[in-house]
Order: sequence, then C-alpha cells, then structure tokens
Amino acid sequence: MSNLKGKDILHASQFTKKDIDAIIKNAIYFEKELKRRSSLNLLKGKILATLFFEPSTRTRLSFETAMQRLGGGVISVASAESSSAAKGETVADTARTVAQYADAIVIRHPRLGSAKEAANAVPIPVINAGDGAGQHPTQALLDIYTIYKELGSLKNLAVAMVGDLKYGRTVHALAELLSLFHARLYFVSPDLLRMPDEITSSLKEKGIEVIETDDLFKAASASSLIYMTRIQKERFGDLSEYERVKGSYIINRSFLDRLNKKITILHPLPRVDEISTDVDNYPGAAYFRQMRNGVFVRMTLLSMIFGKQ
Amino acid sequence: MSNLKGKDILHASQFTKKDIDAIIKNAIYFEKELKRRSSLNLLKGKILATLFFEPSTRTRLSFETAMQRLGGGVISVASAESSSAAKGETVADTARTVAQYADAIVIRHPRLGSAKEAANAVPIPVINAGDGAGQHPTQALLDIYTIYKELGSLKNLAVAMVGDLKYGRTVHALAELLSLFHARLYFVSPDLLRMPDEITSSLKEKGIEVIETDDLFKAASASSLIYMTRIQKERFGDLSEYERVKGSYIINRSFLDRLNKKITILHPLPRVDEISTDVDNYPGAAYFRQMRNGVFVRMTLLSMIFGKQ
Amino acid sequence: MSNLKGKDILHASQFTKKDIDAIIKNAIYFEKELKRRSSLNLLKGKILATLFFEPSTRTRLSFETAMQRLGGGVISVASAESSSAAKGETVADTARTVAQYADAIVIRHPRLGSAKEAANAVPIPVINAGDGAGQHPTQALLDIYTIYKELGSLKNLAVAMVGDLKYGRTVHALAELLSLFHARLYFVSPDLLRMPDEITSSLKEKGIEVIETDDLFKAASASSLIYMTRIQKERFGDLSEYERVKGSYIINRSFLDRLNKKITILHPLPRVDEISTDVDNYPGAAYFRQMRNGVFVRMTLLSMIFGKQ
Repeated sequence: MSNLKGKDILHASQFTKKDIDAIIKNAIYFEKELKRRSSLNLLKGKILATLFFEPSTRTRLSFETAMQRLGGGVISVASAESSSAAKGETVADTARTVAQYADAIVIRHPRLGSAKEAANAVPIPVINAGDGAGQHPTQALLDIYTIYKELGSLKNLAVAMVGDLKYGRTVHALAELLSLFHARLYFVSPDLLRMPDEITSSLKEKGIEVIETDDLFKAASASSLIYMTRIQKERFGDLSEYERVKGSYIINRSFLDRLNKKITILHPLPRVDEISTDVDNYPGAAYFRQMRNGVFVRMTLLSMIFGKQ
Repeated sequence: MSNLKGKDILHASQFTKKDIDAIIKNAIYFEKELKRRSSLNLLKGKILATLFFEPSTRTRLSFETAMQRLGGGVISVASAESSSAAKGETVADTARTVAQYADAIVIRHPRLGSAKEAANAVPIPVINAGDGAGQHPTQALLDIYTIYKELGSLKNLAVAMVGDLKYGRTVHALAELLSLFHARLYFVSPDLLRMPDEITSSLKEKGIEVIETDDLFKAASASSLIYMTRIQKERFGDLSEYERVKGSYIINRSFLDRLNKKITILHPLPRVDEISTDVDNYPGAAYFRQMRNGVFVRMTLLSMIFGKQ
Repeated sequence: MSNLKGKDILHASQFTKKDIDAIIKNAIYFEKELKRRSSLNLLKGKILATLFFEPSTRTRLSFETAMQRLGGGVISVASAESSSAAKGETVADTARTVAQYADAIVIRHPRLGSAKEAANAVPIPVINAGDGAGQHPTQALLDIYTIYKELGSLKNLAVAMVGDLKYGRTVHALAELLSLFHARLYFVSPDLLRMPDEITSSLKEKGIEVIETDDLFKAASASSLIYMTRIQKERFGDLSEYERVKGSYIINRSFLDRLNKKITILHPLPRVDEISTDVDNYPGAAYFRQMRNGVFVRMTLLSMIFGKQ
C-alpha cells in the first residue's frame, strides 16, 4: 500500500484484496493507539481541506476528527452557500485554488464525476466523499473494516443488503468490495429499488453467488450480517405502495426475536425508522461502532496518502 | 468539584454553592494564566464537538476559544442546514454518532429537552448551550463569575433583572444561582413579560426577597447591579404597547446621571438599543468583560469535565 | 515595518514603498520555509477570528491556512446566517465581543466602512478582507507580491488592467500600490465600466502614465502583465451590449498566439470565462500561483501584526 502515497481515493474499485488487508491492519493499529492516547503527531503541520458542497455532518466531522487525531489541521467549507461555487466557479477551479492552501482535499459534491474532475485538476491527493449517485469509497472501506471487526474475518460471509439498492451508492461499493472476498450476497428490496442489473451481472461474472429477494426474514435467516439502508419516500410515485413496502423492511426487537440467532446489523446512517431504537442495545447492533470505525479507517487513509504509515 | 469529571452540564440547578466557589476559583486561575501565555496544553489531543442547530456566534466561538486555549481541537456544526438533522435524524442519533468522534459535546438546539436527550444517549459529557425556552447553564455561571469579579463578592447582593423576564432563559437560571447567595432580587418588566410565577414562588419559598416592579429607576436605585435583557418586539400583539414599554427600559448616560451612584451593568448580548452606546465607556458597563469571562468559565468547565483541574 | 505590530490593515494606501519591500522580503522567507516544513510555531497559542458576513471560500481559507501554518488557531463565522448579525447586532458590537475571544480579527462585510467600524471598536488588530465596494488590501499586497515574483522586479512595469474597472475593488487598490513603483498603467474596459475619474486623476497627479482604452490587444502588446477581472452581467441594462462587450475581453490561446510574446496573466478569481481554460498551461498564467502567494503574504501580515517577524 505504499503506492497510495500522493494518490487520490476516488472509487472502491481501485482497492485490491491486498490493499484492504493493509488498510484493516493499519486501522487496527490506530484503534489501539487511540486507546492509549487521544491523538498522534503523524501529520503535524499538514492541512486537510474538507469541501462539502452538499451537507454531511457525519462524513465531514469524521474526516476532521481523523485529521486532528493525527495532529493535522483542517480548513473547511461546510455548505455550498458559503463557497465560491455560488459565484459560478467550476469544481476544477475551486480545487486548483484550494490546492494552493491545503495538502489534501476531501470533497463531497452533488454531481457525478466532480471528485474526479477535482482530482484531475490538482497535484495533491483528493478523496471522494460522495459525488451524487457516484462513489463514496471511504464509506465502503469503513463498512468492510466494521464487518471484519464484528465477525472476526472476511471469509465465508453471507450478507443481506436491504432497502434502496437502486440509488444507494453505499451498497454498490460495498458489494464490489465484498466480491473480493467471495461473499454470498442477498439483495433485499422492493422491486422498484432493485440492485441495478449491471452490478448484479458483474458480480455473477466474478463467480459471486447473488440471491435477489423481497423477503427480509428469509435473507436474514441465511446471513450473518444485515446491511440496512434508508428507503426514500420521494422515490415512489404511489405513496400507498411506499407505505406497504416500508413496513416490510423494518428491523425491530420482535423481528430479531423471531429470527432467533445472533446477527450483526450495519447501517450507514442517518436512519429514519428502518431500525427501531429498541434494537440499539442488541449486541449485534453495530451501526454506531461503525461510525467510530470510520475515524480509524480515515486516519489510515490519510496517513497513507501522506506516506506516513 | 472533582465530581464533574465525565458529567453533563445541563441545568444551573445542578450546581451547589460550593461548586460555584470552586468554579470561580478555577476561572480566576485561568484568567491569570492567560495573562502570562496565550494558551495551555491541558486538553492537548482532546476534541470538542460544537453542535449549533440554532446559530449563536457568541456562545459557539466562546466555547471554541476556550477549548483551543486549553490546547484541544474542535469539530463544529454551525447551522442546522449543514447537518444531518436536515435528513430527519433525531438529536439522540446525531449525538450518538458525534460521540464516536469527539470527547465531549456542546449542543444548542431550538427544542426544549433536546440537550438532555443528547446527554442520555451518549457516554461522553454533554454541555447544554441553550435548548429553546430551557436552560443555558454556562451563561448563568459566567454571569455569576462576572458579578463576583465586578463587585468583589457574592454576599449581600441586590440585583435588578430587567426586560423580558418571561421568556429570557438567562434570567431564570441566574435568579436560581443568585438564590444560593441570598441575593435580594428586583424583577423589572412590563406586565406582559413578568417573571413566571413558579420561579418567583420557588425563590420566595427559599426565603429570597423578591420585589416585582415596572419602575427601572427605583429598582436600580436600590441595587448594586442591573442585569439587562432584550425586549423582543414579536412578543407584543399591540405594537404601540411595545413602543411605550421599550422606552421605559433603556439605560443611557442621562439615566445613569440621574441615578447618581456607581452601578454595574450586565447584559447577555446581543443588545439592540436597551443599552445606549454612550454607556459603553461607563466604568460599571461590564457586558463586554462579561463576554471575556465566558472564556475563563468555559475553560474551567471543560477542564473539569475532562478531569484536568 | 515593526510599526505594524498591533495595527489594523484596512486600506492599501496605508502602505509605503518601504513597507511593501519589507512585506515582499518576509513573504519570500515564509515561502522558503514552507518548502522545508509544512508549518511553523511562530503564533502558537494565538487565535485568529475570521468573520465572513459575505461568503468567500478563497479569502477565508487563505487566512485560515496562513494562521495554521504559523502554528495558530482559528475561530470562524463562515456566513451571515450563522451569526448574531441575524439578531440585529451592530458590527462594532460583534467585533467587541469577538475581541474578548480572539487575538486578531479578519472581517469581510457587504457594507462599505464596516471594517473601519470594527477596528475602531476594538483594541486588537483588525484586517479588512473586503467591505462592499471598499477595500481589500491583502489582495492588493498578494497581487504585488505575485508581480514581483513573476517579473523579478517592480521597476519599469507596464500593466494592463482589464474588465470591470468601475466596481472592481481589486484593481483600485492595485493601481494605488503600483503607483508607488511608477508603473505605466493601461485601463482596458468597456465605457460603462471605466476606472472612476477620481482614481485616474489621482494617479495622474502623482505623475503616473495612465492610458485608457477599450482595445485589449493593443494594451497587452504594450504591457508585460495583464490583470484580468470578471465583467458582471448584472451591471448591464442592455444584455446585447453585455454579450458584445464580454467577447472583447476574453483571453484564450489564439489571443496569446496573436500576441506572440511572453506575458504574465493575473486574475483575483473566481473567473467565469474571461480566461479560457486552454490558457491554464501557458507559462505566464500565474493566477493559481497568485492564490498560493496569498498564503505567504497573509502569513507575513499576521506575523507582523503580532510583532513576530
């Protein structure tokens, strides 16, 4: 992974199995270190720019925490309104300007392809923190790290991905990374929100066992992990259809009681009501630990792009 | 006060007379230290999250200054729009997520009870920086510290609280803290904006002398300190009533000349026109010193919740 | 320049030729230092407040970078909405409050004269980062530094300023600074957006050679540097006039090929389309280097007002 020095992080597909092993190893190291002391000096003096042209408390604060826990500094644009984008500047120009100030850039932008445009425009590393319907690779990596931590291994996994599989960029990238470890994948969604065909086909070509279903209970029964996502009301023309569907994809205590086996539950958050709060104390409810893992994984990625492992 | 380690700061009523003495002592220490050097290393490596779902330059910047002067780092949400709250996340979930990043949380939220909800949801300390009509305890503590500093003691005080006593959360909390020191309290307001009965009754039960009046001059004549607050136009149905009332609660040089004795003036700021700018050079005009005291008091509270006195 | 300690930076006219020489010397020093290490400890423990009541990614991030590269901390208001200004507070009161927290203030505000109001209200240094149609002196200084770096000297300059010379505060201040070095100035604009008469007259009184023209090619042919600015559509009543004029003030590769000599191109950015992106790789295209120079110049000014050269 020394080859990540100075590189961009744009797409989950850029990571090999070996890369992921290295990232996990480093994230474990940072997790251990932060139990002994609250920050390190690895990136002292370096400055990270977080450019969020679309709001995201979670991802922005996670990166800013990671950078500061490594001893670095942060400059930040938290919303499109407070930026030069409002004056009609292109993403490439904004990136070129910010590259004169900072040592690396994290960017979230509503338009597909914008992170790559930024990366092409500047000599410093650019991390894609979500570009429209596109990628959010550090989320996929923290998901993988969380699965490793919760289940102890990435071998012989059976994973149920649930909810909006059509538009959810998180599940697209995670499916791709899980295919590296030959996981069996259950895609659980209403028909309207099925996983896009090109992804399903591509997985099958790689020899991945893919099972599409609308039955959450059946998929959960056959899986060791459920990856929940939010079903967005605005995707439905017919609201009664939405109400019917929504109810089928809720995890609560009674669901888990019926399931009657230990299962791990992840969610990229924020959730609305697809996971009841009565699940929060369930031992397998890992979605807040998942958030913390995001800091360790981002510390890992930042230290790697700066060549300081 | 070692018992504040790891604790939340949610309500002024959680502080005893002894607590306040300890806070004052520590704030004096930080005030002295900051005369010798511009920052300390007490909280090096720690991260404070400031979550302001309602804008407040003053309180947010004050906390962020305090944290940085203690050597710590800050992650921040400066407005509701740039946060996950916009996606319908509950305060508890937001707090739980942020608790995976930061070592303590300061929260301001428009809804009563939200700070407590956040505190209940997370294992790290939460500081209430204002929750709707509710509490803003660190403001009350900095007010008390300012009174101590300006008057040299908290004994035998006579204090006139002026303006919007009905909705002003500042005066509610301050009255509560002053009752610990058996201050005599003048409540000066138009009838529409009187101090709520339950507060007045509770004070009287504790044996506090409470005098309600609409005559600012009389109350000021009998007091050593005036605590001014802003009267908000939108509270009045009848605007002519507002105009009449507003005029009665303005402190200017001619008022002070008529008063003909030294008096201390505090205000939580921002002011609109209830204190004329011609008062700013008056020796007893302490409202900007009050702002500075906020930094020392917040440094004290932060160092205490982190167990680093 | 030791006299800048504790002083405000409000207007380009406050700087003498000797001052500018000192600023250039110091900026060169910081530029060299930042090649060896990514930050210094000169302002460790100091806090800079950046108050942007009008959004500006560029200037805000540039100052925040400069402060952090000097080892200092930052507190920030990135937009008017997240500030007490929304509650009707005067600029003077906001500044007085923030002066209780920070060691220096950078302010951008839409109203002319507001930076001076802030400066008059507080004992700490205030830097004007743009006040409406008024000044933005640190921009003029970074422009001068860039000219020095690109051309090797400030002697015998011929400079073409192009675009909106009427409302562009950048060109007003730069013309003033260039007059100290007896530059020959070409003012290239549509008639509607001519340089204000009082500026032109004042320059001529100082013995500066000023040539007003609407012919960009002729001016460029006679100059060693072009300073481009954006022409704002909203200045024109007649949009067909705008379209005609806009086309006359575009620099692209074919323009440079026709020009057939090396020329340096500056722009305060953001650009819209007055400089084509096919110019970005041209050796004389210095507008992104100009952004980087802003950090060195602002490091210089911050170190000077803190008395730490």
